Amino acid sequence: MSTNRRFLLARRPAGIPVADDFVLSEEALPDLTDGQFLIRNRYASLDPAIRGWMDDAPSYMPPIPLGSPVRASTVGEVTASKSADFPVGTWVAGLNAIEEYSVGAAGGFTQAIDVSIVPSPTNFLSILGAVGMTAYFGYLRACEPKPGDTVLVTGAAGAVGSLVGQIAKLNGAARVIGIAGGPEKCARLIQRYGFDAAIDYRGKDVAALSAAIAAEAPNGVDVIFENVGGDVLDAGLNNLAMHARIGLCGLISEYNNPGEKTGARNVWQLIVKRATMRGLLVADYVPDFPTGITAMAGWLREGKLVFDEHVDQGIENALPAFLRLFSGTNDGKMILALGTEA
Amino acid sequence: MSTNRRFLLARRPAGIPVADDFVLSEEALPDLTDGQFLIRNRYASLDPAIRGWMDDAPSYMPPIPLGSPVRASTVGEVTASKSADFPVGTWVAGLNAIEEYSVGAAGGFTQAIDVSIVPSPTNFLSILGAVGMTAYFGYLRACEPKPGDTVLVTGAAGAVGSLVGQIAKLNGAARVIGIAGGPEKCARLIQRYGFDAAIDYRGKDVAALSAAIAAEAPNGVDVIFENVGGDVLDAGLNNLAMHARIGLCGLISEYNNPGEKTGARNVWQLIVKRATMRGLLVADYVPDFPTGITAMAGWLREGKLVFDEHVDQGIENALPAFLRLFSGTNDGKMILALGTEA
Repeated sequence: MSTNRRFLLARRPAGIPVADDFVLSEEALPDLTDGQFLIRNRYASLDPAIRGWMDDAPSYMPPIPLGSPVRASTVGEVTASKSADFPVGTWVAGLNAIEEYSVGAAGGFTQAIDVSIVPSPTNFLSILGAVGMTAYFGYLRACEPKPGDTVLVTGAAGAVGSLVGQIAKLNGAARVIGIAGGPEKCARLIQRYGFDAAIDYRGKDVAALSAAIAAEAPNGVDVIFENVGGDVLDAGLNNLAMHARIGLCGLISEYNNPGEKTGARNVWQLIVKRATMRGLLVADYVPDFPTGITAMAGWLREGKLVFDEHVDQGIENALPAFLRLFSGTNDGKMILALGTEA
Repeated sequence: MSTNRRFLLARRPAGIPVADDFVLSEEALPDLTDGQFLIRNRYASLDPAIRGWMDDAPSYMPPIPLGSPVRASTVGEVTASKSADFPVGTWVAGLNAIEEYSVGAAGGFTQAIDVSIVPSPTNFLSILGAVGMTAYFGYLRACEPKPGDTVLVTGAAGAVGSLVGQIAKLNGAARVIGIAGGPEKCARLIQRYGFDAAIDYRGKDVAALSAAIAAEAPNGVDVIFENVGGDVLDAGLNNLAMHARIGLCGLISEYNNPGEKTGARNVWQLIVKRATMRGLLVADYVPDFPTGITAMAGWLREGKLVFDEHVDQGIENALPAFLRLFSGTNDGKMILALGTEA
């Protein structure tokens, strides 16, 4: 293959992205300058945060420029190199884009990885990647967990949420409750991920969801790991234990809402319970990643962590694969396979 | 006087309290049992939190029972006693009610005070009372201030807010910005309380208020001491510096809103800036009050703190005096004088 297919952002989506927001271009392979190397991306990580980067709004990352490929973490192999540090054949992981080839440079964010320590290179986009590190540091640092805590995880069947529930149990939580959408996901929380209780948010308003949480946590929840926002967050806020801590990881219920934000209507409960809500972003913990990778790989080897990846095939399926994150039709961490041929 | 006039809660207010929500009763003085003492309340503290206690909603305090006097902090003199610890003539402060006489008991929340150390007994309801301790501990503990911080105080012309601004400057904040309603209050923030800048929220929507804050804090605010909520909080959230801390002291914009709460629509910004929002309540700091009282009294003696009290006269004016808190027609900490005759 001598061309590079790239999934470009053509215009900024209004709400849920649609096909006309993107263009699949076919371009010549880029030339390399000294110090650069060419990465044949094998897998791209599809994450809710990407939706935010498509907006022209200030955030923790600059917006994806129009006409540029959609930013994503990838793993791949070096297929051409003008860098002694990244010879041809090296496996690498980094923040690149949904495109068959990216250009890396020594000193950048791309790092060599040893794919032999895990069953699949995709694991570096999941349990040992940003998702796994978000769960590990987001829970252990931002939520300040204490032994015996009752922990509520929202978006619990998702990539981060399912790991947070398991880490909480491994770390000494007394009771871990997950909120997810639909009976299948709720069953999986308990049977596969070891949650103590699961609550289906579907068909429940804030009052009903609040009552369902109260039934599972009559003394309130000490920790909330929040991925969802909206009604789910409001119901959690109604069930705080004194001095509760809320790690705010994401608000996926709001990402496709172009109108007024819901936010946290019951923020008053923070005063009632003298609780703390802290925004968290995995980027803050990069210097500590080796600690997290060692710990997570250890639990993985000991069979103490299970994790699901949902791999869709082909760059031409980038949009429907991405939209699974918002329709909830993925069964695990969403990954897009970008082909195997060089 | 041998009767006790009491300001009773007759029904739960819907929104702004009205006259029919209350009854001014005249009752016989209560009999004392061993260990009890009778307090002739001289002054009652009128605080926004009282509005919350009028609702039948779970909070950090039980609701005021219907038919009971409206709960409030008071200072007064012991006029009859069956407690050796509280002889007749002792000045006391405690959480009692808007009534001419309350019954105290040794071992309860009522404490003897030395009114000679301050210009007026009312000071024990203001700068050395819950208001002053809320400002002192709420800022220094819940907001984790650092030298050089840019600090935003909302409700800055209020009792707590005006103290927070002064404490922030005394504690090493680089720049203290206050938000208040109207040009007079804004002028007072700068001229009387020493704020570096004042923003009038009136006539500004979230976008305009956000721009006004950005103009005064181009690098964002490191600390928000939040008393208001609603649009004001949303505008503050739009202007956070990285790792900002928000001390959530009150949400006065919501207390009379019986419908859906606004909360914090821009809570997403906590993630963008990895910021922390912490609910605070002065009750958590009671064991440390002696530290706070010593510090505040010291600053007061050194002429480093100014504080305004707005004293309205007479239990028959309890409702209009209380409503000043919501119309903003008070000039300082609202206190109701309950008469001087024994």
